[in-house]
Amino acid sequence: MNKVTIQSPATVANLVCGFDILGMALDQPYDIMEVRKLDKPGVIITSLDGFPLPADPAKNTAGAPLIEMLAELDQPIGFEVIINKQIKPGSGIGSSAASAAGAVVAANHLLGNPFSKEDMVRFALFGEKVASGVKHADNIAPCIYGGITLIRSIFPLDIVSIPAPRLYVTVVHPQIEVRTSDARQILRKQVLLKDAIRQWGNIAGLVAGFVKNDYDLIGRSLEDVIIEPVRSMLIPGFDEVKAKCKEAGALGGGISGSGPSIFMLSKDLATAQQVETTMKAIYTRIGLDHHTYVTTINQQGVKIIEHAIL
Amino acid sequence: MNKVTIQSPATVANLVCGFDILGMALDQPYDIMEVRKLDKPGVIITSLDGFPLPADPAKNTAGAPLIEMLAELDQPIGFEVIINKQIKPGSGIGSSAASAAGAVVAANHLLGNPFSKEDMVRFALFGEKVASGVKHADNIAPCIYGGITLIRSIFPLDIVSIPAPRLYVTVVHPQIEVRTSDARQILRKQVLLKDAIRQWGNIAGLVAGFVKNDYDLIGRSLEDVIIEPVRSMLIPGFDEVKAKCKEAGALGGGISGSGPSIFMLSKDLATAQQVETTMKAIYTRIGLDHHTYVTTINQQGVKIIEHAIL
Repeated sequence: MNKVTIQSPATVANLVCGFDILGMALDQPYDIMEVRKLDKPGVIITSLDGFPLPADPAKNTAGAPLIEMLAELDQPIGFEVIINKQIKPGSGIGSSAASAAGAVVAANHLLGNPFSKEDMVRFALFGEKVASGVKHADNIAPCIYGGITLIRSIFPLDIVSIPAPRLYVTVVHPQIEVRTSDARQILRKQVLLKDAIRQWGNIAGLVAGFVKNDYDLIGRSLEDVIIEPVRSMLIPGFDEVKAKCKEAGALGGGISGSGPSIFMLSKDLATAQQVETTMKAIYTRIGLDHHTYVTTINQQGVKIIEHAIL
Repeated sequence: MNKVTIQSPATVANLVCGFDILGMALDQPYDIMEVRKLDKPGVIITSLDGFPLPADPAKNTAGAPLIEMLAELDQPIGFEVIINKQIKPGSGIGSSAASAAGAVVAANHLLGNPFSKEDMVRFALFGEKVASGVKHADNIAPCIYGGITLIRSIFPLDIVSIPAPRLYVTVVHPQIEVRTSDARQILRKQVLLKDAIRQWGNIAGLVAGFVKNDYDLIGRSLEDVIIEPVRSMLIPGFDEVKAKCKEAGALGGGISGSGPSIFMLSKDLATAQQVETTMKAIYTRIGLDHHTYVTTINQQGVKIIEHAIL
């Protein structure tokens, strides 16, 4: 029997003006997962973290993608997955994507990598479907590809890696619950054309800023006139965090995924740490429990750390 | 008395998914303009092309920007502008922008270039205001900067040059009238969020494709789900032109500005010429007079070709 152990990174989706299309992988935090190949069909999921799991693997974010993968393989094998989750579910930094992508990359590795990265994204999307009801790829794609990824289109799937200069990421997770499905429901189905134009000006600027290593342009383009004004109402302290972090030197940032985590990008470590201090001070004053991370963009995506032949 | 002669290029605005934010300058066609510095206040516009001109220079696309420039200068001088227009007004390839930008660049040159490119865009926008009622910069900016330019924001003005690989541009101008103001009025003020998301995925892909020299990505991203489905109804043969030109090898394209011109991008000259043949065949069959151009992206913008001290 073969088993692999992997690290599956947290990710920031809905990168400000890049709602639904732009995400990035983080070096911290990450889940650790162990996947074993079984000689009989089926998927077994075990969690080491104490979070309750759906009994049916088809309803589990790591299980559903493996069921799809096995269906496509058409071989009498199965997988056992042991999850040591470090990325808290509901934090808005891609907890479900880490489970889905991690399971798929590990299983593919055990099989000798018959599937492409794009195939793996396709399978992992079934995990997002289970988690939030929507097949959104802006956590899954950076989790598998690493770096910053653009999902130009989801049908057909078109993933583009966006090179970027070195950036530091500060994340604060205030301990309140924002459900992805709720965060989707409060969005308006229609937007003003003039706002949409402003948004696509910003996303064009952000991509150009990343590819051209232009920090100023990145900062100017980190503006979301459509989603953030609505969703930020669900996150206590959001406006103050954003304003004070920019005063502290951050290039800019916004809601991570559908929240409640907030992320900020900085040009150097000292600024990213100052931003962390700022975030902590605000949530301490508000009286809200919180976790923070100061990290960098993960360039590799899911990482195989051990492959044992038992 | 000083005079300069300049070439002011045609431009393609509303670059497919880049409505209102992305434009490019063309090497062909261009207007020729002569601007003289006068020792007394005022602006005089003379046209050599037989097109009727507003008697009041404040209502002329070349005059209005110069009046703004003179107001900012606060000197007892004036300008005379002689326009030899080659870019037909109403063609959708930036005729008004060429007049406005050409006048401003020439005047600035006569003064010893006291104004920056951004200043010149700011003045030239008054010409667009006169022409169409709206200060849109996606013709003006590429006309002054050259190349492909992103107008990330118009208030405040934020112009970003987007590098791109060598591209050939084929333009067809079917001889029908589409007024910019009419073309604006038929647009819906609201768009579906899901369409807006698809559009900003495409604009992000297009910018990434340009900067990364990725022709395939450029081609895949040349899709407009918001403006083109509405405006293309004003242009006879549009759908057929687009489909057949892509069959002929074009990467993609769409409406130039607010039409009626249609442009297509190709990777090489032979394809761009084949695209021209395709366009001509369609409009000949439809029985609509038309002009075509096969050209490249103008990298310089308005060009000083002569500076004489009289």
